[in-house]
Parts: sequence; structure tokens; C-alpha cells
Amino acid sequence: MTKKINSDKKIPKHEIPVGVVGSGSFATAIVKMLVENCKVVHWCVRNEFVKGAIELRGHNPTYLTSVSFDVKNLKVTTDINELVSACEVVVLATPSIYLSDAMDKMTCNYENKIFVSAIKGIVPKVNDVVGNYLRDEFKIGFRNQAVIAGPCHAEEVGMERLSYLTIAVADDEVAKKMKDLFSSDFINVHTSKDILGNEYSAILKNIYAVGAGISSGLGYGDNFTAVFVSNAIREMEVFLEAVYEVPRDVNDSAYLGDLLVTAYSLFSRNRNLGNLIGKGYTVKSAIQSMNMIAEGYYAADSVYQTAKDKNIKTPIIDAIYRILYQEESAETNFKNLTLQLN
Amino acid sequence: MTKKINSDKKIPKHEIPVGVVGSGSFATAIVKMLVENCKVVHWCVRNEFVKGAIELRGHNPTYLTSVSFDVKNLKVTTDINELVSACEVVVLATPSIYLSDAMDKMTCNYENKIFVSAIKGIVPKVNDVVGNYLRDEFKIGFRNQAVIAGPCHAEEVGMERLSYLTIAVADDEVAKKMKDLFSSDFINVHTSKDILGNEYSAILKNIYAVGAGISSGLGYGDNFTAVFVSNAIREMEVFLEAVYEVPRDVNDSAYLGDLLVTAYSLFSRNRNLGNLIGKGYTVKSAIQSMNMIAEGYYAADSVYQTAKDKNIKTPIIDAIYRILYQEESAETNFKNLTLQLN
Repeated sequence: MTKKINSDKKIPKHEIPVGVVGSGSFATAIVKMLVENCKVVHWCVRNEFVKGAIELRGHNPTYLTSVSFDVKNLKVTTDINELVSACEVVVLATPSIYLSDAMDKMTCNYENKIFVSAIKGIVPKVNDVVGNYLRDEFKIGFRNQAVIAGPCHAEEVGMERLSYLTIAVADDEVAKKMKDLFSSDFINVHTSKDILGNEYSAILKNIYAVGAGISSGLGYGDNFTAVFVSNAIREMEVFLEAVYEVPRDVNDSAYLGDLLVTAYSLFSRNRNLGNLIGKGYTVKSAIQSMNMIAEGYYAADSVYQTAKDKNIKTPIIDAIYRILYQEESAETNFKNLTLQLN
Repeated sequence: MTKKINSDKKIPKHEIPVGVVGSGSFATAIVKMLVENCKVVHWCVRNEFVKGAIELRGHNPTYLTSVSFDVKNLKVTTDINELVSACEVVVLATPSIYLSDAMDKMTCNYENKIFVSAIKGIVPKVNDVVGNYLRDEFKIGFRNQAVIAGPCHAEEVGMERLSYLTIAVADDEVAKKMKDLFSSDFINVHTSKDILGNEYSAILKNIYAVGAGISSGLGYGDNFTAVFVSNAIREMEVFLEAVYEVPRDVNDSAYLGDLLVTAYSLFSRNRNLGNLIGKGYTVKSAIQSMNMIAEGYYAADSVYQTAKDKNIKTPIIDAIYRILYQEESAETNFKNLTLQLN
């Protein structure tokens, strides 16, 4: 439901210095969430053009362009050190393939800062999830990390449609801080302690969304999509248990809900990528025809290898991997897959 | 995927006399499935007009009109006794509110016949599911019963798009027979022993689809729908455990898949009913404006009472019940519901 905020409720509440790194649609959506609650939101964007456009026009020039900001609530920079130095909480929201470019420039002191990953992908440099990358490469422990999970399409946040976030975080005090920072009239926040499970779930759902798109492009209908998705959530459960065994209900919104919004929504770039491939585009041409990054493509390679390492049965991931990376036929692979689903 | 059957595969395989009672879209879809495999399919329709139209034109005059039959494969009647007497397997596929009208006319011997319910609703006369109605009113034991569960929209069966059926049945031999009767190039059949769970699941998903429609009509978006559906499947799990406690995974296609296809598909009449109510139609006018039965409406009353009897927490069913039966505001009930979901 579209919620209009009364102007008298617009008084920012928090003085926690918070910043967002990234200038895509989800980064923009997160800045929008934070300006509801914070006097100033620091925003590190990719270049001077984007910075200038935001400062001049009050909106991102390329993504979620309809979301207007009051520029006096923003402090835009292109320098990650300026942002990290000024902030207590740093939200990382670049595409996963650009994260290490941004982080490699970080030379300032970042001790005791909280790094919140809103990235739903694998960091290619280390072929691992963001949480492990931050811990191994930057010595940022899990107590100083949080993960934002959906279901939360940026486009609907832009429209102030009621959305739910799950923020996974180890420390209870940090959890409370996150809830305060992100909750608003159009954002309901729940917290969880399943950091790695939420990271992987957000990554897997992108791969499954590519698969849902492929099936749709091939001409399979709604009946099949429903079977596909119900098999996907069961496969996800097996995968999550193999990589991080904690008690969880995969039907919680952060897992199943996020899968649904990505697999069913027309906003989903992963689904759109798959749809093009299903319709007969080569993988390369399908990727080139999109001006957004489909994280599921990059994740499929790494996740496939992890599944092999863990020796678990993941027929859906395997089929998508073969289509994306081994130039195998989408039609044949899905035909075989239909015999393995139930 | 649309699958065209080679003409040389069109040779009917089975001589098991089988019949379908009902002339709506799902009944028509089931006749279509059966003619793939059977020399003759008996079909009991509601009146002489429908019978005459099918025999003259080779298609149902009102529902799934694009599905053509070779009339020499059909034996159409308006007399349930003629059909039951001639058949070994009887598929019941009327709307639930008309089932007792049809069954009350059954005076022939029906011992040892298998009754297969394709009805996804509550029988108003006894305020109970079809399985219990058949057992209590007709002494048809569970060993002579089967339940067809989805996810399986009739419209897509009509288009020969690959669909999966789960047939719940107690007896292994009957299970094999069902598989033989229904499996084809576009229908994958799995069997289950959870007869009552599959019946209730098919009923509950219609209620939840009404809810998904209401939320859409009220203006909630994809992010919220995903949260709603992931809460719905958890609520369904609690309900099924309370009414029939057997080991089951609610993420199997028959439960979650069926919920998804109904809650997300534009073909879903239950979703459409909810959508009208969400947009501000009164319940009565929304029902009158549809020319198909929305089973979810009728089921909500009975299922609500069952949940109260079992003393379980079902906030979604409760909200939908109040909107449908107590003239309460959809907007207020969903606003309250948003605070209970997670």
C-alpha cells in the first residue's frame, strides 16, 4: 500500500552517523529508508557525475530516478574514506562485482564501525560471500557485521509500498540500532542471528529467479513455475543446512519471501535475464542487453562449486550452471529437470 | 511448455471405465487429461443443454471452450447413476456447494468403486471436507477414496502446459491405477498418503488466495505479497498439523506449489474475488460480478470455525473471515495484519 508520510512526522530522529556505499537502485532505496529517520545520510557514489547530478537535481540520475531527496539531508561523496571516517554504520550496497574496487580504496581507520551488507552476491576476488570477505580481508568480525535481507524490491521502496526487512546481526545492541535506523511507516524490520544463512539465501534466490525466468522464456506456465519454486525452496534448505547448520525455518520471509518476490516479480532483473535466455538469446547477448547487473549469473558459478564441495544434491542449481557457464541448451536441461522435480 | 502430442501416441491405453462428474473448468481439464489415456471417458454434466452442446460441438459451451474433444471418446450423460454404474473410477469435480445435489441423486450400487475428489472446498450440507462427507454420508471408506491436488490450473491443462498433480490415496494399488490414468506428456503425477492434509491444503490455499487478492486490491505491492504468502504457508502448516498430524513437508508441490499458483496466478478466481473486495466492492457485489465459484469464500467460514475449535492461532484466516462474513473493513483488517506478519 502506498503510504504518504505526514510532513509533521518527517522530523529526523537519529543522530547516528550512517552512510551508504553504492549508487544502484538498492543503494538508492536504502538511502531513502535512512533519510526517513536520520538528520544526515552520507552517500558514497561511483563518480563525480552521479554526485553532481544528485546534488543538483535531488535524485539519482540513473536508478530509481523518481525518488526525490532533500539534498540538505544528504552528504554525497565519491571518497569511501571520507564516508567511513564520518560514519558509525556503513551500508555496503554496490553490485558484488564492484565491492572490492570500493573496499580496496579504504585506507582510513574503520575499527568499531558496523558494516552492513545489502549485497546479494558473491565477491569474485575471493569467490566467497561478503561476510567472509570482510572478515578475512579486512578483519571485520561478525560482531561488527549485519546483513540486510528482503523481500524488498528497491522499486517498491521507492514508491513507499509497505516492505519487510530482515536484518541478520549477532549482537543484540546492534540489532536494536539497526531496527531504529531502518524502521519507518513503510518498512517493517525484523532481526535474525542467521548471518550466513541470510547471505546465502539472498544469493541463491537470485539463481533460482534466473531459473524461473528461463522456464517462462521456454514457454512453461504458472503450474510449472509453482512446482519449480517449491522445489527451489527445498533445495535452498538443503544448501543452507550444508553451509551453516543452525535452526531456521526457510519459510520465514527472509528466505521464502525473498525467493518469491524475486522469482515472481516483473521488477526482477534476474528473472528477466533468464527469460531472455529461455527465449533463445545467448547468455552473452542476454547479459549485454540489460543495463543492470543480474547477480544470479555471477553467483551461479561459485554456488555450484560450493554445492559440489559439500556433496549435496542440487539439480536446479546444476541445470542453471550448465546453461549459464557450459553453453548447454536451456531446453534440454529444463526438460531433464522436469523429470527430477516433484 | 506447450507440448504437442504425436498422433501415433494418441492410442488410448486404458480400459478402466472412468467418469467425471461436473461441467466446470476443472472438470473439463480432468476429462482432457483422461482422454489422453482412456478409450472412453464418461462425463456427467449438469443439464441437457451442456450435454447437447458438447456432443454437437465437441467442447464445453461455457468453460475451457477452446479445449476440443473427439466426441467418440466421450460418453456424456446428465444422470449420475448411469455414470457411476458404468465406471470403476468416479472423479468428483463439481463446485463444492453443488456436490451434495449431485450425490443425493446417487441411488445405484457404488460398492468397490473408487471416488476421486477434485473438489477444493467444504461441503456446506455437512460443513466438512469431501473425504469426511463421503465416508459419513455414503460409507465410502478412505481406501476407496483419492484426492487430486495441484498445482494445476485448469486453463494451463487446457493448453497442454506441463503440470504436476499429486494424488493422495491410501492404497498402493489404487495409487498405481491413478498414476496410469492421469500421467501423460503434459501431466506428471506423484502420489501421497496424506489424504486429509491434501484436502485441507487445497481448501486453505483458496482462502489465502482471496487474501492475496485483497492485499493487491488495497494497493499493497509485490514485497508485501511475498511476506503474506510466506506467512500463509507457515499458518497452513500449523493448521494441517492440528487437523491431521502426519509427517509432511508443506514445501512439497501439493501444498506450497498449489498455494503459489493460486495466490500468484491471474487465472485464479479466488485472487480475483479478493482483488475486487480490496478495491472497495462489497463482498456480495464482488461475488455477483464473477461467473465462477470462488471456493475460498465458502471455505473461509468453516475453516475459521475449525481453527477456533482446534484453538490455533490463524491471524490470516481470521482477518479474511471477518472481511468476508462480518462486513469488517478490508483496509483496517489488513493494516492490523501487517503488524502480525513477519
